[in-house]
Amino acid sequence: MNSASQLRKRTLHMNVAQLLSKKRHGGELTDAEISLLIQGYCDGRVADYQMSALAMAICLQGMTPREVATLTKAMLESGERLPRESSDRRGRPRVDKHSTGGLGDKISLVLAPLLAACDVDVPMISGRGLGLTGGTLDKLESAAGFRSDLTIQQMDAQLQQLGTFIAGASEKIAPADRRLYALRDVTGTVDSVALITASILSKKLAANLDALVMDVKVGSGAFMQRMDDAVELSQSLVRVGAGAGLPTSVLITDMDQPLGETLGNAMEFNEAVEVLSGEGPPAVRELTVELAANLLCQVNVTPDRDTAMDLLSRKLDDGSARQRFEEMIRAQGGSWTKPLKIAPEFSKIDAHCDGYISRFDCRVLGQCVVDIGGGRRQLGDTIDHSVGIRVHARVGQRVNKGDRLLTLHCHREPATDYSSALRGAIEIVDVPVECRPLIIQRIDSLSTTYR
Amino acid sequence: MNSASQLRKRTLHMNVAQLLSKKRHGGELTDAEISLLIQGYCDGRVADYQMSALAMAICLQGMTPREVATLTKAMLESGERLPRESSDRRGRPRVDKHSTGGLGDKISLVLAPLLAACDVDVPMISGRGLGLTGGTLDKLESAAGFRSDLTIQQMDAQLQQLGTFIAGASEKIAPADRRLYALRDVTGTVDSVALITASILSKKLAANLDALVMDVKVGSGAFMQRMDDAVELSQSLVRVGAGAGLPTSVLITDMDQPLGETLGNAMEFNEAVEVLSGEGPPAVRELTVELAANLLCQVNVTPDRDTAMDLLSRKLDDGSARQRFEEMIRAQGGSWTKPLKIAPEFSKIDAHCDGYISRFDCRVLGQCVVDIGGGRRQLGDTIDHSVGIRVHARVGQRVNKGDRLLTLHCHREPATDYSSALRGAIEIVDVPVECRPLIIQRIDSLSTTYR
Repeated sequence: MNSASQLRKRTLHMNVAQLLSKKRHGGELTDAEISLLIQGYCDGRVADYQMSALAMAICLQGMTPREVATLTKAMLESGERLPRESSDRRGRPRVDKHSTGGLGDKISLVLAPLLAACDVDVPMISGRGLGLTGGTLDKLESAAGFRSDLTIQQMDAQLQQLGTFIAGASEKIAPADRRLYALRDVTGTVDSVALITASILSKKLAANLDALVMDVKVGSGAFMQRMDDAVELSQSLVRVGAGAGLPTSVLITDMDQPLGETLGNAMEFNEAVEVLSGEGPPAVRELTVELAANLLCQVNVTPDRDTAMDLLSRKLDDGSARQRFEEMIRAQGGSWTKPLKIAPEFSKIDAHCDGYISRFDCRVLGQCVVDIGGGRRQLGDTIDHSVGIRVHARVGQRVNKGDRLLTLHCHREPATDYSSALRGAIEIVDVPVECRPLIIQRIDSLSTTYR
Repeated sequence: MNSASQLRKRTLHMNVAQLLSKKRHGGELTDAEISLLIQGYCDGRVADYQMSALAMAICLQGMTPREVATLTKAMLESGERLPRESSDRRGRPRVDKHSTGGLGDKISLVLAPLLAACDVDVPMISGRGLGLTGGTLDKLESAAGFRSDLTIQQMDAQLQQLGTFIAGASEKIAPADRRLYALRDVTGTVDSVALITASILSKKLAANLDALVMDVKVGSGAFMQRMDDAVELSQSLVRVGAGAGLPTSVLITDMDQPLGETLGNAMEFNEAVEVLSGEGPPAVRELTVELAANLLCQVNVTPDRDTAMDLLSRKLDDGSARQRFEEMIRAQGGSWTKPLKIAPEFSKIDAHCDGYISRFDCRVLGQCVVDIGGGRRQLGDTIDHSVGIRVHARVGQRVNKGDRLLTLHCHREPATDYSSALRGAIEIVDVPVECRPLIIQRIDSLSTTYR
């Protein structure tokens, strides 16, 4: 015989089971039902095994925009928010950029201090790398002593002082998302437009932003391989963001080749510093400025895109963005004065024939960085920040046999005959190749889709 | 930093996540993958939240017959089997019947002792009622002292002594199914042909049977409301049973009206005793004999259906089936000599007009039995065995205004104006109605489908 409390628990369990059955059969959950599920998940009335079954049902049956909006709000309300007063008092708008993750993506390291130098607050809550793409926090931790675990109070203080921080999500921000994400990770339910939208936006809403720009990457080095999926996610983010009072715009960008010329934490850190100093690879600078310009226009700091681009270029070229970066690194405990030390050249990959670079298999390059110690196979793995790959070629480029394509910087061979895998990851053809543009599509609102 | 054991656990978790993702995307799991999942579930390497997500994915993406067969085998092998020697030594075939559950279904109480009286062993592992349909064990426990919790050793001993027992599933039989069933119950993943097939057959295979007959009920008083669903489940059971070496036949039977004339535990017990004494409602006797004849033919105890029907009728009419029933009740600790005591007549429902009974809404009748205390809303609820409903009408029957349709036996009114709900549950029309046959379809093998 069960006790009364067990019976009450079972009653709720059966109600939850009915909600899971409703979603399983393609039904639309009401606001009250979604709140019950998320609140119940936070206070223990809804079990992990129920939430994982719900996640699977959502993956297969989807959610309507209203359901996603309600889910986002419920996850936001499961935690605390970054206080808004610190920006309001100083009359500074508050913005952020988020990327779905791609190979060689070091944009955040440049964009946050650059915008802060334009008198805009950027409270950037970021993540670690798992799998083939690196994490912003890992790249920053290449600077010895850098602390990414700030409390909400520390975040707020640094925002007032420098206009930016880049830190990991506090456990107090959207804890429902934190738990659900960990659950999705081990139940094959990560890639769902509804769940990704709610996960990203609940955390961004907790930062009390005025505008958000999303960098949705598509291609062999991205989470999304197909353009259709990227557009669907983008529209969901724009729609749900707008509905929740957070104006959100999206750039869908190319990830069929690495972004910039370096892969690996310290190498990417150094490349970001080059861009912050008005140098570095054009693609990294271009994408950073495009994303940042979107935000400046959204919050009316600049009247139009051209003015925004001019302002941003000036802040990169005059050293003020780099100075803000240095202040941020120091404020978060990091020490660094000159380019970070990189592992020695270990081997190189040359072109095996004359021709034109037609495509990269980014997954092979990403796997190689993980294998030489620069990424994690599993949570908790230790990272060697100094290793990486320098990429000497771009899609469309003309190469001659023997030209350098890649240089591996590491302390040990990744695996037997890794060179042939890397060589195979860069395709060379004998006719000129048209290069896909870096920015494939812009989605600013659901009615306006251009380029 | 995680410890090494946490990392190993995470590695397996990620492998499991890949399998869930495979099923989520409609892939077919290999035998090794299914074994890993079920064995892992038993030894704790696969978590409840992973198994529930898998169940949801199976509900939505289905399983191939081979996958269901492998799942069944894996769940069977998670536990012990009933020893086979006790039947072999005595030269007795071993059979069982299983029903998907319906209102007023007391067939098991008659069939098990009836077949035992025909020199066939019937090790019947049965369940309790939850929801609108009652459970065989609850009906038997109307006899004071009846014990349904036998060990495998006690089951085997009673099978040798009397040729039958009716008991609950020991925790040692198909424990993976027991845990998975409890999980499905609270995650909205009960109604899946693949999971139902594996759940039923894993337990029946553990009894080491020579033949199984399934009573798949369809209609308003059954789990399956649609004929298509009933046929799909039946074909799955026949196919997977045959593949696992357990010849399985199915009768798809009508559950658009209650089976027999009584609903409620002691009332159904008494009705079963009437049928065991050669009396009682024709429908209950007919279905029992049909199901039992299927089994006698399957194990070649009788050469054909007619001979089987004759033998079974004789065993009902000469009192030997009833005597075996009394021995079984006594062997399992139950005391009972005359009809069990029933709660007093509390109210009655009469026909409100002249006409023909066209249909019953069985769910309303079943809910009423639960509400007057005769069933469980939740696991652990106490049951009043003495309450119930006597059903005086059948579909197709001609009635005059004022004729008695139902009599409630209980100690308290179920709910305000319950009479009008019950009255509304029996539809009376003014033209003669053709009655759906009790046995709608027989499925003996996948190539032979008749009636």
